Amino acid sequence: MALPSIDTGRHENTLAVIRSLRDHGPVARIDLGALNGISSATVTSITAELLQQGLIAERPPELPRPTGRGRPKTLIQLAPGAACVICVKLSINEIQLVVGDFAGQITHSEHHIVHTLTMSAANLVTLLEEKISAICGRQLEGFQRLAGICLAVQGVVSSQSGTITWSPALSFRNAPISAQLAERFHCTVLLENDANCIASLLASQPEYAHATNLVVIMLGYGIGMSVLINGVPFVGANGSAAEFGHSKYLPNGALCACGRRGCIEAYASDYALYREATQHLALPAGDSAHPSEQQMQALTQLALTGNPEASRIYAEAGQALGYGIANVLALFNPDLVIITGSGVRGFEAMQTSMHAAIDDALVTELIGATRIESCAWDRDMTCMGAIAMTLDATDAQTLLDSQTVREA
Amino acid sequence: MALPSIDTGRHENTLAVIRSLRDHGPVARIDLGALNGISSATVTSITAELLQQGLIAERPPELPRPTGRGRPKTLIQLAPGAACVICVKLSINEIQLVVGDFAGQITHSEHHIVHTLTMSAANLVTLLEEKISAICGRQLEGFQRLAGICLAVQGVVSSQSGTITWSPALSFRNAPISAQLAERFHCTVLLENDANCIASLLASQPEYAHATNLVVIMLGYGIGMSVLINGVPFVGANGSAAEFGHSKYLPNGALCACGRRGCIEAYASDYALYREATQHLALPAGDSAHPSEQQMQALTQLALTGNPEASRIYAEAGQALGYGIANVLALFNPDLVIITGSGVRGFEAMQTSMHAAIDDALVTELIGATRIESCAWDRDMTCMGAIAMTLDATDAQTLLDSQTVREA
Repeated sequence: MALPSIDTGRHENTLAVIRSLRDHGPVARIDLGALNGISSATVTSITAELLQQGLIAERPPELPRPTGRGRPKTLIQLAPGAACVICVKLSINEIQLVVGDFAGQITHSEHHIVHTLTMSAANLVTLLEEKISAICGRQLEGFQRLAGICLAVQGVVSSQSGTITWSPALSFRNAPISAQLAERFHCTVLLENDANCIASLLASQPEYAHATNLVVIMLGYGIGMSVLINGVPFVGANGSAAEFGHSKYLPNGALCACGRRGCIEAYASDYALYREATQHLALPAGDSAHPSEQQMQALTQLALTGNPEASRIYAEAGQALGYGIANVLALFNPDLVIITGSGVRGFEAMQTSMHAAIDDALVTELIGATRIESCAWDRDMTCMGAIAMTLDATDAQTLLDSQTVREA
Repeated sequence: MALPSIDTGRHENTLAVIRSLRDHGPVARIDLGALNGISSATVTSITAELLQQGLIAERPPELPRPTGRGRPKTLIQLAPGAACVICVKLSINEIQLVVGDFAGQITHSEHHIVHTLTMSAANLVTLLEEKISAICGRQLEGFQRLAGICLAVQGVVSSQSGTITWSPALSFRNAPISAQLAERFHCTVLLENDANCIASLLASQPEYAHATNLVVIMLGYGIGMSVLINGVPFVGANGSAAEFGHSKYLPNGALCACGRRGCIEAYASDYALYREATQHLALPAGDSAHPSEQQMQALTQLALTGNPEASRIYAEAGQALGYGIANVLALFNPDLVIITGSGVRGFEAMQTSMHAAIDDALVTELIGATRIESCAWDRDMTCMGAIAMTLDATDAQTLLDSQTVREA
């Protein structure tokens, strides 16, 4: 069977239509044309083909509003069952697996507590194969195909070679991991830094569309960062760029989880805040090296309600964060810095000293027009971003597969 | 008169041939084809046209070597007089003007001591117009055309808008400057950061060709940096990226020329080294706030010959530099960091503590495979780089002009 030949312009337009439907949800044909700068004749032709391939569906027109004129428009939407992706978020002693449908929505999510820090690379691959197989067996009914798998990992990864270089969640180093999963599950396997997943998701939102040079700082157990340059994640020569958490606040300062001293993370991460707090405050019992969300919320409350020690600790964290951000401004000159992640719960207690530190560190010309904003962590943007990246990376293959099925 | 129509592929190949001749010097036709991946028929046709336009010349074959086989090859070289560019390097209280010929060689150079720090933007433009006019009147005989002018400036510039945002050499800010010169001299005017000129020059050298992610740190009176990402200078959202000198070593540390405290520059620049040294050592008389090359060489000699105070001062500067470079490695993950500039004279006295600081600051996974090298400052790479950038930016226009002249 010959593969269908591809008209490049048509192919690009088709992918753009799929992407628009994913970003915007149900859209009328006329708006699809406007969003992508293509003619209505082309939209009609592309949507007819996508309908036939089962990748999109028409949604019955809504009732006309009382004030509406003309007949209501038929909306087009992605067929959720056309394909799915599985994303695995790997954090310290925890993995989360989610299934995303073709429209980018989460249809299934599960957590597992596992001792990631004591695992070998082979153990990890075996565990992932097991968990993904189980999902394939039980959760993928109604999907035409598994388009891809994404591993979103804290730390340094080489997306190109599919290798985990160094992660605070793992004790092994430089482990190739994507190839084995790709062979086992016969699909595309992406390996991404977790902060890059979040940044990609944020960058696709209309409110941040103007910020082509975007820095996203992720506060939490550790501290991650993603830098988008002209909208593209900047990973450096070997994938270890944007390691903001291990840039320096103070030579010979506080001990970091990486083993070195004075990193930003050693002051402003959850473990650092809690470690400092246990020296001075009576806190709820629990694992003080790996504080839970509940423990962190209790500490944050103390700071926000004026406990002097807790306030001092957050203010110092804000100062370290501010000096770190000052370096990011001097070196990257971004349009926008967004601070998010679960640790943003404590941002209110840090922001005054953070801004003071930035002003203290840099002349106004180097702060320039860069805006610094926080973004609430009210949903897990890592998995949502990983799903979107995986679908974007596999749309061309899904399109080809559905054409092949139709022509077979 | 109609402008000649341009065949895009042919045009690109012609520009590539010109660029090869500039980078490599005289080359045989057959090698020009190999260097640019174009057929010998195309090379023959392109060089015939360039010969007719007076942009290249043939060089008589050299005598065959005793062991040589076959007849010696005729070499092609750029016609130096086909065009020239003028570059102005603006530093604190000094401007240097150079003329570069079409082959990229400096044919004239002059220095002027001027009080840059007390000048208004209007004064600077008037001064530049005067000095450039004088060069046009006296130094450009034998050149077919002035193709362009480049201002290479310490500090933050917006190349796109031709505006000097902030320079340690100037007390005014945000001054548009290129447009007035372009109008006065009827040619392309480039405005570039001085470190970007150096990085562009280094990146074009075969020994650094593999380093597509290249960081160049320029030590001197101040400290500058250029970051090439995939070979292209990274300037950030508004042109103020890569301001390494003002990234932080120590919160509330030594006073920097920018007015803030704890910048890398406040420890490792010429003025910082000399300022610290005057506290502890008897040094040759001179301007201690703006030490001369001679004063700096005397100080460096003390450090290199084992004077304990001088050695300590350079070791501390090396430590600050090392912590700053550690941040650059964590954030940019480059293939290669090159340290150069006039301040590299003292690198030998700094490098041990610099490497120790990097090892102290970062886990090996974040140092990765990045090489850190120094490059002797035995010629002024700023002007050489500015000439090359200006010629590259104006080759298309020079080509068009020479075609127009021929066809008129």
